[in-house]
Amino acid sequence: MMLRKLLVANRGEIAVRVIRAAQDLGITTVAVYSDADRDSLHVQIADEAVNIGPPAAKKSYLNVAALLKAAADTGADSVHPGYGFLAENADFADACAAAGLVFVGPSGDAIRMMGDKVAARAAAHAAGVPVVPGSMGRVADIDAARHILIDTGFPVMIKAAAGGGGRGIRIANDLAEFESAFPQAAAEALAAFGDGGLYMEKVITQARHIEVQVLGDGKDAVHCFERECSLQRRRQKVWEEAPSTALSDRVRDELCASAVRLTRAVGYSGAGTIEYLYDDAADRFYFIEMNTRIQVEHPVTEMITGIDLVAEMLRIAGGEPLRLKQRDITVKGHAIEVRLNAEDPARDFAPFPGTVSGLRVPGGPGVRFESMLYAGYTVPPFYDSLLAKLVVHAETREAAITRLVRALHETRIDGLKTTKPLFLALADDPAVQANDVHTRWLEGWLETHAARLVPELEP
Amino acid sequence: MMLRKLLVANRGEIAVRVIRAAQDLGITTVAVYSDADRDSLHVQIADEAVNIGPPAAKKSYLNVAALLKAAADTGADSVHPGYGFLAENADFADACAAAGLVFVGPSGDAIRMMGDKVAARAAAHAAGVPVVPGSMGRVADIDAARHILIDTGFPVMIKAAAGGGGRGIRIANDLAEFESAFPQAAAEALAAFGDGGLYMEKVITQARHIEVQVLGDGKDAVHCFERECSLQRRRQKVWEEAPSTALSDRVRDELCASAVRLTRAVGYSGAGTIEYLYDDAADRFYFIEMNTRIQVEHPVTEMITGIDLVAEMLRIAGGEPLRLKQRDITVKGHAIEVRLNAEDPARDFAPFPGTVSGLRVPGGPGVRFESMLYAGYTVPPFYDSLLAKLVVHAETREAAITRLVRALHETRIDGLKTTKPLFLALADDPAVQANDVHTRWLEGWLETHAARLVPELEP
Repeated sequence: MMLRKLLVANRGEIAVRVIRAAQDLGITTVAVYSDADRDSLHVQIADEAVNIGPPAAKKSYLNVAALLKAAADTGADSVHPGYGFLAENADFADACAAAGLVFVGPSGDAIRMMGDKVAARAAAHAAGVPVVPGSMGRVADIDAARHILIDTGFPVMIKAAAGGGGRGIRIANDLAEFESAFPQAAAEALAAFGDGGLYMEKVITQARHIEVQVLGDGKDAVHCFERECSLQRRRQKVWEEAPSTALSDRVRDELCASAVRLTRAVGYSGAGTIEYLYDDAADRFYFIEMNTRIQVEHPVTEMITGIDLVAEMLRIAGGEPLRLKQRDITVKGHAIEVRLNAEDPARDFAPFPGTVSGLRVPGGPGVRFESMLYAGYTVPPFYDSLLAKLVVHAETREAAITRLVRALHETRIDGLKTTKPLFLALADDPAVQANDVHTRWLEGWLETHAARLVPELEP
Repeated sequence: MMLRKLLVANRGEIAVRVIRAAQDLGITTVAVYSDADRDSLHVQIADEAVNIGPPAAKKSYLNVAALLKAAADTGADSVHPGYGFLAENADFADACAAAGLVFVGPSGDAIRMMGDKVAARAAAHAAGVPVVPGSMGRVADIDAARHILIDTGFPVMIKAAAGGGGRGIRIANDLAEFESAFPQAAAEALAAFGDGGLYMEKVITQARHIEVQVLGDGKDAVHCFERECSLQRRRQKVWEEAPSTALSDRVRDELCASAVRLTRAVGYSGAGTIEYLYDDAADRFYFIEMNTRIQVEHPVTEMITGIDLVAEMLRIAGGEPLRLKQRDITVKGHAIEVRLNAEDPARDFAPFPGTVSGLRVPGGPGVRFESMLYAGYTVPPFYDSLLAKLVVHAETREAAITRLVRALHETRIDGLKTTKPLFLALADDPAVQANDVHTRWLEGWLETHAARLVPELEP
């Protein structure tokens, strides 16, 4: 092991998770915390802790100068970014490298490429990974666009090449809509971004979210099978599983092999996740994007494979070649993770920060409770609402659901409203039990069920 | 699954463990509790709970009539005895059967035979399991005794056949001592028990405690490999591991095969443990006894094999044939369990009951915390002092020890003195790290180390 002292540039449950993994490998840990997080569990369990500023993330967890100073002051030789905050910030990875710190993740260049949707799509295509039908980069003009329609069909998405996030997107449902939308979109893009360039992509109307966990050391790469995360609300995953019962063995093999090809092709180093849409009806999968960090839902993969993914990240960052061979990575049983958030599902998931007056942690074989909670802890209002990930593992999906329900009943987070009733109701729903869902299923279900998901507020 | 509703005739962490396993299989659970245990976790998480009497165990947890009434009143069809209390009471197993209840364990006859040291030893010998050299049953007279000395050598134990526990035992270190001790022992046995019968056994002066976990369904049987529990204080295990690093593959194979032979020979049904002494120097193992119940330390076996032993007990009791094939039971990694007791190791392990003012449960991959604790729980003074079993699993023994230390530091049981400092010191000891120990090692070590094992009393 090359790493000696690791600064964990994050907070909450993922900071706790990373500190545990590092300590399990004998690496000394440095926590950082904002003024709002003085009493946090990650601060308590780390070997050292450094205050990095006020609660606003910009002034603390996103403050590169403060983080680099904390690393220098404590003699850390490495930085783990967790997820969120700076985890997919290429400049931060570069800044760590420039300061002589090992960044536990891929190079800044790899983060940059995968963060650029067009470049990532081109890299996937070049590696023989199916991408959503559409233009490869910018569409030259409306004649070229009409040709692309042969591949995409309708509905088709027209998007400003220079737009970020959801900005500058139009959907055309037929040729007439397309003929008017395309020139309008070009004009709007020019006005908004100073660049009228557009690209096009087929709209997959109903699909599952399937993602493949990969590990690379810059040369070699392996996959750790797939996760299914089709239960989403506003594009946020709320319930994740591994493996996916929706895939045939043939599709699983193709999917995982394609993920390894892409990981190898880009010389990727560290843990990453390649996300796909899987269209059941057409039995086809399409690359969406690669996340160049550890994911929230990584424990389900750990439970079915027995691999400690965060430990592997630390080993790879420490310079060890990948020690896992593909043939040694096998799947045992089924795992489910649910995200217990401090939110009231009956009131449109309104955040519910406050003090945990009592805590009952579920246990027994096949149960992991990944959390920064303790009795007496006050959840600050400045950050995301994730309180705990309840992860269960059992021989079959059916047994995992039964165990999930048992563990949910055991879990008590007194003083807060949480999303627990959502998961009890989902576990009881025939569509979830049959895994007959897609990425938009939950939002439809919530329209008729949300009002009844009233959390008990324990004293 | 045949079982529908299970009464758990126990308390504390094992009641919690059994309730979880039953609920994971969809079995409704009934907790029982004494007046002292109204606020216990096992009462909170069970589907139903019945008060069975005053705190004194005789009037509640050992009160067969009260237990059978609770089962009848709640419509339970089965009873799990846990460990301790009535778990190895053949009459209780018979009484359950007579009341039409499935006793989750072997038959009363099997419990009775294995509870009789001479009968158990004879059964082991008949099954080709090495037993400690000595008489097979009673020694006819001093001439026969002198013949047996050829096998046993010195020191040799002379024991009243009618004596129980440690009563009526003498040790002879040479022939002169033997010649005077034998007739004295016979006279004393006659006076004390009305029966002058004696038996003899070689005294194994230095050995490891190794035990094999078995599962049987009355016809077939399998083993789930061995545990080593050599770290003991006053014959109480305090630190248990699986597998044992002291065994060669050849010895492990012989040991486990012998355990399966005995389990099959007696038509055993349920989970059981066959205990052995292993003499490193002579490279020989000897049967000591069979425990006809789940053991405290069963989770280390679960962690290395992935088998839920309590669930298997329930399945077998429900009438399912053994579904595990020997070839499917494999060992992955290394697991260690330590027993966190409410005791002060610096004051001769004096009990320290009280109220848990705060609780921090360790977590992360490869960590199980089996406990009935919660913040605010008051440990009653009437029962054993076990607060929690901390169980860790990792790829190697070395990594498991590192993880154990990490998880111990994470664990906080505020308001009580516990044995935590004992385990931190043991984990740091070169002999423990090398597993260079035997059943009397810990007591010697404590003579020089105990005074320094001062528990922090958290506020």
